[in-house]
Amino acid sequence: MTVSFTGQRIALLGLGLISGSLARSLKAQGWPGHITAWGPRAPSLEMGQQLGVIDSWSLDLERVIQDADMIVVGAPPIATGDLLAELLPRLQSSSQRPVITDLASIKGWVIDRASCDYEGYVPGHPIAGSEDSGVRAANADLFRGREIILTPTEHTDPSATAQVEAMWQLTGARVSHLTVSDHDAALAASSHSPHMVAYALTMALADNPLAPFQHGGGALRDMTRIAGSDPVMWRDIAVTNQRALLDALNDVEAELTRLKTLIKNADGAAMERYFQRCREVRRANDTVLNPLTEIHSDSEIGSQPVAAKETSRS
Amino acid sequence: MTVSFTGQRIALLGLGLISGSLARSLKAQGWPGHITAWGPRAPSLEMGQQLGVIDSWSLDLERVIQDADMIVVGAPPIATGDLLAELLPRLQSSSQRPVITDLASIKGWVIDRASCDYEGYVPGHPIAGSEDSGVRAANADLFRGREIILTPTEHTDPSATAQVEAMWQLTGARVSHLTVSDHDAALAASSHSPHMVAYALTMALADNPLAPFQHGGGALRDMTRIAGSDPVMWRDIAVTNQRALLDALNDVEAELTRLKTLIKNADGAAMERYFQRCREVRRANDTVLNPLTEIHSDSEIGSQPVAAKETSRS
Repeated sequence: MTVSFTGQRIALLGLGLISGSLARSLKAQGWPGHITAWGPRAPSLEMGQQLGVIDSWSLDLERVIQDADMIVVGAPPIATGDLLAELLPRLQSSSQRPVITDLASIKGWVIDRASCDYEGYVPGHPIAGSEDSGVRAANADLFRGREIILTPTEHTDPSATAQVEAMWQLTGARVSHLTVSDHDAALAASSHSPHMVAYALTMALADNPLAPFQHGGGALRDMTRIAGSDPVMWRDIAVTNQRALLDALNDVEAELTRLKTLIKNADGAAMERYFQRCREVRRANDTVLNPLTEIHSDSEIGSQPVAAKETSRS
Repeated sequence: MTVSFTGQRIALLGLGLISGSLARSLKAQGWPGHITAWGPRAPSLEMGQQLGVIDSWSLDLERVIQDADMIVVGAPPIATGDLLAELLPRLQSSSQRPVITDLASIKGWVIDRASCDYEGYVPGHPIAGSEDSGVRAANADLFRGREIILTPTEHTDPSATAQVEAMWQLTGARVSHLTVSDHDAALAASSHSPHMVAYALTMALADNPLAPFQHGGGALRDMTRIAGSDPVMWRDIAVTNQRALLDALNDVEAELTRLKTLIKNADGAAMERYFQRCREVRRANDTVLNPLTEIHSDSEIGSQPVAAKETSRS
């Protein structure tokens, strides 16, 4: 069943890379509504308006949400939970009852923190981003081919979920549904632990007197790129998805230990099998990881992810 | 002191991604000489000639090297060592005495295996590549802005080193010199351990019932890209650089353990400092890791590595 997005006024609470890219994308698709934004500081909101990302802004939260039919909370996980805890009870007792969704990478902690069964709340998480942050990096194509995971709870009104889904579909994303706990465990493995691994690798090299970064090629470029990510967001993710993240890191450590044993034993045959299996697994998942290559293979956009295949061996 | 490349006939022993890219690059630069290739199997050599990567080929090693003034051994590390062990004594007793270099990612093991002090041998290693292998993936721009590390030994004739250096400079690479042991330790940290980390991460996710790869974004794309690398080459690297690789992996594991402790303690302040330091380290090394962005910022080539900055958060 396809539902049209009927939202006329979107309120972004927090204006950064992700919420700004959503705004840019909707405008690029010709969506005719109004986008307003609230945030704690004027300069980035002002810049968002100057860049044409948003139509208006205010530092007054009440004013920004008063006419909104769709509220999008775009903040680091802990701030998202705090804001929802404050807002949802107010929306529940309001006459307007807008749909509200969020963008946080963690769903369980945020939903628990919100601790309100407002039926218009649709927990969400776009699997897209960049190590750059801020509205200046907002990009209308950020969500094309990417997954948006929604984790509606037992309290969520299906028509609210359908509206959030319809909004995201305008951006070229594909929307899927997961349970809250499956989301947090799957993302711990697919994203949160890889970020921790990138951080650990970067720190391991940082003070090496041989300056290995100075001899890095495409492999090191890619394996440390996300170590440039926003420290506050990743602090929040590590704090709020603690158990699933530790489980995922233990899985990676167990494989590292297994690989080290093969290296210690100079077991070339077993290593070749291990690496071959990894090559097959990686290739089998290449399309989902490089969606633009698949979807727009002849366009300029399509050529971008291919570039990520460029220089790297060593 | 700048020396011109005086080579007229290059013999590639092994025709793959790296040697093929060297050939393509020299031709793209208008170098007027002849490039011939030897390999164990006809089809890839034939394809190399059809693609215009090489001018001629033969399955007869003797015939391919007989007129060469520059020999480039392009094979996985163990095969490189084996081939050098066979060839160097013959070159030493020949009247022609060509310059010979190799492309192997390990220098200590290869030089030890060659066990010949032929003064025309210049051990080398281009820090460039791709998870794609084979001559079909050869790319004239592969070395632009990338580092070529030479590790001349006490036996190497400086004029041979100068010729290898002059050849590489034609490709747009920057040439540097390291001792053999510094090379192997620096590369264990900058490239070999990152590859093992990518393999371990890929394997940790491979059989996870939540199918984390299906929920992967740009972060997972980049953190597993090199797990698609050539299994034989990486088996060889892990076998031949065993000690330095284990040291580098221990450093990464120590950082992972440190990070896990911060996560277990939910020590948000310490994590934020850790992630902030990583962001600074990564940004400070961005230029060396994305050299084309710097050098050709307005060209099509320049736009490629920027794309690697694209989609990734989660």
